[in-house]
Amino acid sequence: MQTNKLLALVAACALLAPLAHGAALTMSDVLAASKPSDWRTLDPANTLYVDFAAGRVIIELAPQFAPNHAANIRLLTRERYFDGLSINRVQDNFVVQWGDPQNTHKLQKAQRTLKAEFTRPATGLPFVVLPDPDTYAPQTGWVEGFPAARESASGSAWAVHCYGVVGAGRDADADSGGGTELYIVTGHAPRQLDRNITVVGRVVQGMELLSALPRGPAPMGMYEKAEQYVPIKQVRVAADLPAAQRTPIEVLRTDTPTFTALIESRRNRRDEWYKVPAGRIDVCNVPLPVRVKKE
Amino acid sequence: MQTNKLLALVAACALLAPLAHGAALTMSDVLAASKPSDWRTLDPANTLYVDFAAGRVIIELAPQFAPNHAANIRLLTRERYFDGLSINRVQDNFVVQWGDPQNTHKLQKAQRTLKAEFTRPATGLPFVVLPDPDTYAPQTGWVEGFPAARESASGSAWAVHCYGVVGAGRDADADSGGGTELYIVTGHAPRQLDRNITVVGRVVQGMELLSALPRGPAPMGMYEKAEQYVPIKQVRVAADLPAAQRTPIEVLRTDTPTFTALIESRRNRRDEWYKVPAGRIDVCNVPLPVRVKKE
Repeated sequence: MQTNKLLALVAACALLAPLAHGAALTMSDVLAASKPSDWRTLDPANTLYVDFAAGRVIIELAPQFAPNHAANIRLLTRERYFDGLSINRVQDNFVVQWGDPQNTHKLQKAQRTLKAEFTRPATGLPFVVLPDPDTYAPQTGWVEGFPAARESASGSAWAVHCYGVVGAGRDADADSGGGTELYIVTGHAPRQLDRNITVVGRVVQGMELLSALPRGPAPMGMYEKAEQYVPIKQVRVAADLPAAQRTPIEVLRTDTPTFTALIESRRNRRDEWYKVPAGRIDVCNVPLPVRVKKE
Repeated sequence: MQTNKLLALVAACALLAPLAHGAALTMSDVLAASKPSDWRTLDPANTLYVDFAAGRVIIELAPQFAPNHAANIRLLTRERYFDGLSINRVQDNFVVQWGDPQNTHKLQKAQRTLKAEFTRPATGLPFVVLPDPDTYAPQTGWVEGFPAARESASGSAWAVHCYGVVGAGRDADADSGGGTELYIVTGHAPRQLDRNITVVGRVVQGMELLSALPRGPAPMGMYEKAEQYVPIKQVRVAADLPAAQRTPIEVLRTDTPTFTALIESRRNRRDEWYKVPAGRIDVCNVPLPVRVKKE
């Protein structure tokens, strides 16, 4: 363990009154001892509610990584572009996707395609470093709740394709996406997509409404018949809904000693059940806790 | 994207010319050019058919890693221990599990618990090395179709928890598993389980019958009501069924130049769609192809 990391952990432990003796912590310990300031409410302007008959999927947009795509998706939402579209692709161990394959929904001010936002300069991004090695990137960590990676050689950073990450589908041309077609990762992190497609957000709540859908029988998990499609009732920007229609949740901040302690609790599992702590963790295996907001 | 991609795949499948010149290959190229000897039929004595109303899940047992567990699961199967049991746990992004929580099924010669088989000596295992770095293990690769890892310091090897891997559930005691309760990985590889639980096999076909099940609402994804349980009609060792009831499939051998070419085709994706080949791959992201056996 790196010294700065250890110091951060010691600091975190010192804040945890019930566990002031430096005992090894489980994630439950860490969360139970968290302070209100360790949590944040999602910015309503960057929060999408995707409502299905079965319930609500909540997406946090990632303007840090894809400002133009985030703005376009907000516009598409406000133009009601997504309302009445459907999930038409469910590929096992890969993605769920919705879009408008028949091009029946017209655009108003929103764009159909945008310049790719696959990476961005790392400079200026508050990056919380995970010290463990990663197969795909020189360094991984988190930027404001998003699993991320960066590379000093190019000076670039990008959002990482973990479970629950949302991206903008595109054709072969790099600049052919824009947010009209969105996919959500539902399998083992398809990290080969990193730097090849624009990540626009992540699912914060409701993954089970997507991950448990019947797999599509056609190639790439496409549904073959229109009756298999899973209709989207509506998509709304949370900011556009009255408070009573918003879902009151909070997410754990990733730039806190509490999150550092949480990472450590998962790098070295302390539950009685574990016999050999891994001592390391994949960025995509670190949970990003969500809770009901305390009024 | 779908149409372009499909056309690209069709084109790739048709064009075997690049193979002769050692050019960069897609996975479709590699598979199209494979020889009959690149494929193997599963050993019927190490193959389980788990039959549900919705279809058949095929499991290849891993006696290389867990000889005692594999033998015990064969015995449990032959004693009809699993018949009529149910899936009672479906935890999102983690596992599906079946067992006998009420202990209604009696054992005959099979054991309820066995000594743990978390690791084994690396010596004697034909290990195909993946050159890329891994977060959790010093080295990863494959042993006879199973994603695996090894460590020179301890001289040990173990099967790795990738999507589709099957393990023997246990309680807090390391030696409290035995195969009466089995789990299947349905999410991002929970590599923290490596060396902490006995891997007994992997699902070769039928994952979508498990991965798309409704998630359990109780803690750890447990189903709360008996009517949510998904009954197992029967489990059989393939060797015990007449040929007509067996599923004729073959899996690609992992100790062949063809599999090496397949790995490379996935480390550096050559499809027109990819702009930045990753140059590396996570052992759990390498597909293990299955096909209908040619009679």
